[in-house]
Amino acid sequence: MRGYAMQKDDYRNRLRRIEGQVRGLQRMIDEDEYCVDVLTQIVSVTKALQGVGLGLLDEHLRHCVREAAESSRIEGDAKVTEAVQAVERLLKV
Amino acid sequence: MRGYAMQKDDYRNRLRRIEGQVRGLQRMIDEDEYCVDVLTQIVSVTKALQGVGLGLLDEHLRHCVREAAESSRIEGDAKVTEAVQAVERLLKV
Amino acid sequence: MRGYAMQKDDYRNRLRRIEGQVRGLQRMIDEDEYCVDVLTQIVSVTKALQGVGLGLLDEHLRHCVREAAESSRIEGDAKVTEAVQAVERLLKV
Amino acid sequence: MRGYAMQKDDYRNRLRRIEGQVRGLQRMIDEDEYCVDVLTQIVSVTKALQGVGLGLLDEHLRHCVREAAESSRIEGDAKVTEAVQAVERLLKV
Repeated sequence: MRGYAMQKDDYRNRLRRIEGQVRGLQRMIDEDEYCVDVLTQIVSVTKALQGVGLGLLDEHLRHCVREAAESSRIEGDAKVTEAVQAVERLLKV
Repeated sequence: MRGYAMQKDDYRNRLRRIEGQVRGLQRMIDEDEYCVDVLTQIVSVTKALQGVGLGLLDEHLRHCVREAAESSRIEGDAKVTEAVQAVERLLKV
Repeated sequence: MRGYAMQKDDYRNRLRRIEGQVRGLQRMIDEDEYCVDVLTQIVSVTKALQGVGLGLLDEHLRHCVREAAESSRIEGDAKVTEAVQAVERLLKV
Repeated sequence: MRGYAMQKDDYRNRLRRIEGQVRGLQRMIDEDEYCVDVLTQIVSVTKALQGVGLGLLDEHLRHCVREAAESSRIEGDAKVTEAVQAVERLLKV
């Protein structure tokens, strides 16, 4: 069971909405909308994606990292390292 | 005519691929994949979106801002202000 | 003459303030302040630096890129490419 | 005792180097260096600051959050929430 198991529906809905926003971007390009307006919409989709990412990070720390830490110090440490590397990749986007 | 007009097909293809990646994220959630793997995939979708955003910014500066600058100093200045504000929103994501 | 020439004093003051904030961070570490408070302060210094970066980008587009564009299409294009690459590096931080 | 206690010297050295880089930025402005070169240097200082931030986050998760989690579920949860909010602020820079 993953940390996000209890919120699967929420994540599914958010991702479905993001999928719709990406289709909206394609429509904006098709209809020759103004570059800056398309950029503004890209910022909004990216924010929605980051929101999903932060949610997953939250659950990961709250569940997976904690469980690993409860089983052994070494496993807990490995999970923390992995989580920080994930944050680093998020920051580098 | 927008700055990105000549590359519409390229933008459409990139956005269609991003749409597929977002559907892939939904599948990952459905199939209970590991949180960190989902996060890694979110980073990759976000990078692809930023790539589209940078492309649009490039065309915007190369075409819309230049045309405005050629028509008058005031219009050129207004377009630069608008472009920098767009970059600021991109940075704040 | 650089695009930022007329605002040199402003940039100097902002950077002097940032230097003081970085010294403040060293003090926080010396005095064992709480990690999350140090992180919050790091965010605030980073924001101040990005503000300087956006200011320079604004002047760069408003002056250097425009002058290059006025001298020739090729030089203007080269400056836009360079500016977009700078934005890309800012985004990747 | 803070999570970063054992690495205080390392953090101090990194911040002292960052302070020197910020002074270097002031010199670049004084000497009218090219805007894009100043921007590139700003990116490098920002990266160094983010590196310190990620290091602090790592220690925070490894020590403070763990200790809180060992003392009670409620305290552990509160620390995770706080850590994720810190990551969110880092991302929004």
